[in-house]
Parts: sequence; C-alpha cells; structure tokens
Amino acid sequence: MAPSPFADPQHANPHLRWHPLRGEWVTYAAYRQNRTFQPPPQYNPLAVTMDPANPTELPQGDYEIAVFDNRFPSLALDSHDPPASTVPTAPANGHCEVVVFTQDPVSSLSALSLSRIELLLQVWGDRTTRIGGQHNIHYVLPFENRGAEVGVTLHHPHGQIYAYPFVPPVPANMLAQEREYFLQHGSSLLCDMARLEAEDGQRVLYQGPHAIAFVPPCARYPYEVWLMPSAPCKDFAALTPEQRADLARALKTVLLKFDGLWDRPFPYLMSWYQAPTDGASHPETQLHAEFFPPYRNRDRLKYLAGTEIGAGMFAMDVLPESTAYELQQVQVSLEERVVQ
Amino acid sequence: MAPSPFADPQHANPHLRWHPLRGEWVTYAAYRQNRTFQPPPQYNPLAVTMDPANPTELPQGDYEIAVFDNRFPSLALDSHDPPASTVPTAPANGHCEVVVFTQDPVSSLSALSLSRIELLLQVWGDRTTRIGGQHNIHYVLPFENRGAEVGVTLHHPHGQIYAYPFVPPVPANMLAQEREYFLQHGSSLLCDMARLEAEDGQRVLYQGPHAIAFVPPCARYPYEVWLMPSAPCKDFAALTPEQRADLARALKTVLLKFDGLWDRPFPYLMSWYQAPTDGASHPETQLHAEFFPPYRNRDRLKYLAGTEIGAGMFAMDVLPESTAYELQQVQVSLEERVVQ
Repeated sequence: MAPSPFADPQHANPHLRWHPLRGEWVTYAAYRQNRTFQPPPQYNPLAVTMDPANPTELPQGDYEIAVFDNRFPSLALDSHDPPASTVPTAPANGHCEVVVFTQDPVSSLSALSLSRIELLLQVWGDRTTRIGGQHNIHYVLPFENRGAEVGVTLHHPHGQIYAYPFVPPVPANMLAQEREYFLQHGSSLLCDMARLEAEDGQRVLYQGPHAIAFVPPCARYPYEVWLMPSAPCKDFAALTPEQRADLARALKTVLLKFDGLWDRPFPYLMSWYQAPTDGASHPETQLHAEFFPPYRNRDRLKYLAGTEIGAGMFAMDVLPESTAYELQQVQVSLEERVVQ
Repeated sequence: MAPSPFADPQHANPHLRWHPLRGEWVTYAAYRQNRTFQPPPQYNPLAVTMDPANPTELPQGDYEIAVFDNRFPSLALDSHDPPASTVPTAPANGHCEVVVFTQDPVSSLSALSLSRIELLLQVWGDRTTRIGGQHNIHYVLPFENRGAEVGVTLHHPHGQIYAYPFVPPVPANMLAQEREYFLQHGSSLLCDMARLEAEDGQRVLYQGPHAIAFVPPCARYPYEVWLMPSAPCKDFAALTPEQRADLARALKTVLLKFDGLWDRPFPYLMSWYQAPTDGASHPETQLHAEFFPPYRNRDRLKYLAGTEIGAGMFAMDVLPESTAYELQQVQVSLEERVVQ
C-alpha cells in the first residue's frame, strides 16, 4: 500500500438510500461528477509518478502490483451524516481500492507471467484479510472491468476492490443457494457442479490438478466462463500454494483464449466471489470467478433489455456448448506473450 | 390479433435451464441465431403488407395498434422435449408478442395522441387477460426497448409482451417486498411511496387527479422514472376509465420530457409491472411502469459493471433530485406534436 501522493483528499461522503421495492441499498456519490482533476489526454494516473510536481495516483518507485485507495470512492469508511429523504438513508460505509497489475501501461492481465498472476491472487487475499478484518466490512469483491465496451476509460491494466458493509444482493443470493445445497447434500454446490462439468467435458476450457475453468451449462452471457479451485476453498486466503499456482494457470488460459478468439483484446467484467468477512465460517461457499463478456459475437454486443433488466430472466440466442466449443478451439501456450 | 401472413412457422422450441447458483431459469432459443429471413435494409417488417408476395409481419389492412406473435420467441407455449444437461432443464413454455403502436414508421410513443395511448393501455389489459388466462402463464410483462443504445434495430414504434410460466426474479422480489409491507401496514407500498413523493414534491414530474410520475428517491439509473395510478390498482384490467385517461397523460408527459431533455429521441427500457396471473388476488401489488434510461448525461452512457453486475449494488454519481430538476424544467404540452 502506497500513501497517496495527493495533498488534497477528496472528502468523499457518499450515502446509501434504501430501495423499498427491491429491498436493497443504492449508493450515491454525487461529488464524483465534480471531479476537479481533469487529466490531459496523455496523462496516465495509474503510471508511477515521474515528476513530484505532477503526481499520478502512484508515488515514485518500482513495483510489481500496486494497491491504493480509490480517490473517488462509492463507499468510504468515514462517511457520515447522510441526508434525509423519503426513503431510509445511511452512511455509505465501505472501502474502494484500485489494484494496478503492472507498470506496463499497454500490457494486460492475460500477458502477465504466471508468477505475477499468482502474486495477484496473493494480493487479493491480503487485501481481503486486511479490509475484511474491519468490523464494518462484511464482503470484499475484487473485480476487473476491461474494455471501452464496459465503460473503462483507463486502459492501463488494473482492477478494483469494493468492500461492502453488508453482503450485496448477488453474492447474498449465491450464498443462500449454496447454503441450502450444503444443508441438503453436505457438500459444496460449486464443487459438485465443477465435478459434473469435468465428467461431461464438453464445456471445459481448462482442467488442471487443482483448478478448473468452464462455460457454465446455465450461462446468461455468451462466452460466460467460471473458474475455481476444484476442491473446497472458501476464499483467497485459504488457497494452498498448489491451488494458487493452478488457479493462475486456469486464469491465464481463459484470458489468452478470450484474446485469441477474435485476435483482439476481449472485454469483460471479471468478478471474484468468496466467503463474507462477517465472522461466520461459511463452509458452503466456494471461491470462484465469473466472467461476464459484453459481446454476443464478433460484431455485436449483447444488450440487456426487456426480459433481462425488466424481468431478471436472461434470454440467450446461443448455447453454452457452442461458445465453449469456440473457446476450446483457441490454442494457447501459457509461456507465450509473457511480459514482466 | 392478426393471423400471421407467413406460410412457414418457425417451429420455435426454446428450452429453460436451471441456474443453481442464482436459483433462476435461463431461456435458450438457439434457432434465433439462424434466422432465415434476412430483410433488405429498406424492408420494414412492422409495416403493413403492401404486396402479398412480399409479406411483412402484418397482413394488409388498416389498424391503430397491432398485436402479433413474435416470430422468434424466447418462450413458446408448445415447447417440448428439452435437451438434457448437467443442470435441470424444462420446456420454455411461455409466449412472446409484438405490439405495433402506429402505422407511422417514423413516429414514437411520445408523439401519439392521448386517445391512442389510452387505447394502448387497454390493449395491454386485453392481452394480459387473454394470455394470462392460460394455465401455464403466471406473469405478463409489457415493455418497450427504445433506441439503438438499448439494442433496438427496428425503429418503427413498437413494444413487446413477454408472458412467463413463472413469476420472474425482478417482479418476484418486488412482490415479496410489497407483500411484507402490506402485511405490516395494511396498505400498498407503492401507493404509500407515491403519496410521500406527492407531499415532498421535489422529484414529481406529473401529478394528476388519478396518476403520478416521479423520479424515485432510490433511483438506480440517472433519469429513472416511475409512474402509476395514485390509488390501489393491481393490473391494467382493473384501471377505471378515469385512471386510464390520467395514466395516459402521465405517460405522455414523461415521454415528452425525455425527448425534450436533449432535443432528440431519448432511449429507454420501459417496463410495466402488474399482479401475477397465477389465480391469487394480490391486493399488495400496484400496477406501475419503471423507466431505465441508458444515459448518465447528454454525452455518456451509464455502463453496468463491477458493482452493479457483479455485486448487484448500484452506484450513482448523480442524485435523483438533480435529474428530477432537469426533467421538471422541460416544458411540455400534451396537445403538441400529436400525430395520428
């Protein structure tokens, strides 16, 4: 963790409002629209500071992976005095960090060495333990938004970590399904799904001694991929060195297949789910990543519209077996295109 | 309802797959990718057929509002024999219709007369009663995707109706919240919210004797708007003529404000929620529309990414009060730009 090179903290004071019809919180950080900091087009805030008079987000120095506080957070631990409204409001306590994957601004996660990717899995674990250890934080979500198609404006390889004061709706629902399954079967829903996929084989993209990646049989997005350790493992901190090494191989394989599919950088949201940091043991939960790519084919985006946004039922024009087959055909070498 | 002018039905046979980690169904209609029907650029399938040798989706004739079966449905009542997979599968029983709002291909819902909009509300009611009366159909959702920004390729003014064999996740969650509120308070959650908004006033866009439109205090999208009858009304069929007339005025007001905001057609998803057609009485439920516009400001789209898609917690850079103020400033006349 680097101290911020900025003398002027942003005094973020986001607040939550309760959505009574959905039973969920929405966070408002209106100050984000008034960013005083308008970088010139060539300015890269995720590069290391070269001239202290013109600081970037990173102080001078050499690093492999850098983590720092998001200057424009949607959640902040010192939020206070939320405004009153016609719905309940609360301070948006939480924490947002930026994780820079490399000093090379034109590289990508897929191009990093296996050891760098292993280090990233370790960093996510360290940050989860540190942030999740604060009593206000109940869930830590590392993710990467990649590509202009998902709204990314900074192309320097980086991800984010959001730490929530509650378990947010998507992982909360996931945990409820995993818990019910665990109570009924005494085993992990995701580990059992992974075993079935390994046996079936037709949607598998990577299978190593300790990790697996596959297109889920119930994909809601074309080219959706899940990856995880094959054996029960509830969070990053619980990964054995062998699991971590194989998970890095699985991740790099999937990323290279994505980029190789159409011979261009493949955009996606990559979301990592793990056990809540709420003090409970969570034997039902499995650490895993889900990729949500925005394209339905090489030329067309999949738009979320009527039935997806309005009803919450996803409609797919392509079978998971077809996109899995396409990705299986992409040959990759884990040693190629390695950039430190 | 018009009979299809096509001799060749598509033999749609979509199927559902169970998503164990989310506890929801996903529908697959792989044949949709193989549409044999490639219209020339100038061809408008939503216009009336002029030459029977080159049929559109609509037979010859004069109409105000036309409803016909979607030729490429994601759900079909005669679906059968779903393929086996590693997750449970089922026939994708359901029904998909197209609703054409006018014969004028360059008009818009906002430009239609109040009487035409009232007729549309009646049509939605008639279709809900008819389709919802079938024993396999538990939820009927009328919606309109408008604009290339939400993936619409046919600009002839039209909407769709999806009829589901179950109550899908978004309305199911909504109903659960409404039910809990109704049990606790003995009144409608949405009617009580609408009353608070009317009293507060700062987010109200339309207030008539029987209907109200406002930016919700818990908006998840910039320019999100809700509109509804002010008094309890569970579905389109239950609207009184006075409610229907005022709801048409509320709807046209919102649509004109949207189009007037940046003096260009405003894209949105408009979703209409009502009581399930599952045979229960649903006193807790309120008929209402929600608009989900894709823009965060005149020039930039709001991308759903990490926290929205990955976690299900929406993060907003703009307060509902600000977007409500912008829309309040747009002056509209309900009699202007009326096109029959």
